[in-house]
Amino acid sequence: MPIRALAFDVFGTVVDWRSSIIAELSEFGREHGVDADWSRFADDWRAGYVPAMDRVRRGELPWTRIDDLHRGRLVELLDQAAITVSDTDIDHLNRAWHRLDPWPDSVAGLTRLKQRFLITTLSNGNVSLLTDMAKRAGLPWDCVLSAEIFGHYKPDREAYLGTAHILDVAPGELMMVAAHPSDLRAARDAGLVTAYVHRPLEQGPDRTPERPGHDEFDITASDFGDFADQLGA
Amino acid sequence: MPIRALAFDVFGTVVDWRSSIIAELSEFGREHGVDADWSRFADDWRAGYVPAMDRVRRGELPWTRIDDLHRGRLVELLDQAAITVSDTDIDHLNRAWHRLDPWPDSVAGLTRLKQRFLITTLSNGNVSLLTDMAKRAGLPWDCVLSAEIFGHYKPDREAYLGTAHILDVAPGELMMVAAHPSDLRAARDAGLVTAYVHRPLEQGPDRTPERPGHDEFDITASDFGDFADQLGA
Repeated sequence: MPIRALAFDVFGTVVDWRSSIIAELSEFGREHGVDADWSRFADDWRAGYVPAMDRVRRGELPWTRIDDLHRGRLVELLDQAAITVSDTDIDHLNRAWHRLDPWPDSVAGLTRLKQRFLITTLSNGNVSLLTDMAKRAGLPWDCVLSAEIFGHYKPDREAYLGTAHILDVAPGELMMVAAHPSDLRAARDAGLVTAYVHRPLEQGPDRTPERPGHDEFDITASDFGDFADQLGA
Repeated sequence: MPIRALAFDVFGTVVDWRSSIIAELSEFGREHGVDADWSRFADDWRAGYVPAMDRVRRGELPWTRIDDLHRGRLVELLDQAAITVSDTDIDHLNRAWHRLDPWPDSVAGLTRLKQRFLITTLSNGNVSLLTDMAKRAGLPWDCVLSAEIFGHYKPDREAYLGTAHILDVAPGELMMVAAHPSDLRAARDAGLVTAYVHRPLEQGPDRTPERPGHDEFDITASDFGDFADQLGA
């Protein structure tokens, strides 16, 4: 079956969330005259992401968008660090997730891939987050799809099948692209084609993600340029 | 309240559905060696649109996307004209609605407006239709929103409020842009700001749409260039 559309995971796959968040936190610290280990703060902030989504996935929380899950965790971490700022300042800092910078090869690679395929996000980030991010960073999506649209966070099957349905393609005509094997395994279980892109710096210079076996996914690529080469785009 | 996002009606407002559909039907006729009054066929095809959506809006039909509503009407009209073609040919012709051409000022106007505002579709067309159309015509949307995402066709209130919610803006920060007063009146009733853009040729050269009073909507514009001028974009 030919591939008709590519659905991209975003945090870590398209954008370097960690460096961006550390930079935003450092700026926040300078503005407010507070200091902390901002790298650790960024990692702790991100570490709240999966457990919070899992509460939604298990039905313990009603649908809650990532902006609100991020904000809840941020307030906890600021409290723990005894940092007191206004709600407006918290809102601005929380929206740092709307201002993440892409990896150096992302825009050029997506621009090539867009010539040949329909390209969309399929992220757990909410639509406004993804749209703001794309506008600021110049990510040339054909459309912006999100777990928010399907009411199911990845790796719920509904997110992958919902994407195929709304794009009017068969699951086997849709390729999920991600730097995270767990996302790709769930996509594959739902019938999608899969592409792993290695992002060795996602967790910072001191933690190297385990690279899956070369045969586990349909494509394994070292970056978006290599990925576009392999797809002939 | 400042305007933060612009939501555009698409059929008739951004694209010239009638000329595009007549051209596709004429091409279809030539390929299949059949003749008909294709202008009238196009108008009859489009005339099935609102009654079909209204059946969904009243709950007489479950959610059905525009592609399927269009196809149902097309099959009826081909039957009435005693034109017999394959299902594949019907599918291709039905997807003419994915290949509509923009009005001459649409791409340039949207490109200007995008510099200053978040721009999205808010159309009754389904997501894959809108995405295919944008890709082919170069419509530079920041994101693609559709009645399909909200499970409610315009003029249901949920479509307008759903757009504000998913973009994380207040209804009064969202401007609905359309060539159709009925769409704008429903948007206004939901609390949105409104802009009317006159498209005198939407129904063809022989039918001129009634122009609403200059004061009825927040902005009245003669085309997207004039609209961008009035917004200072």
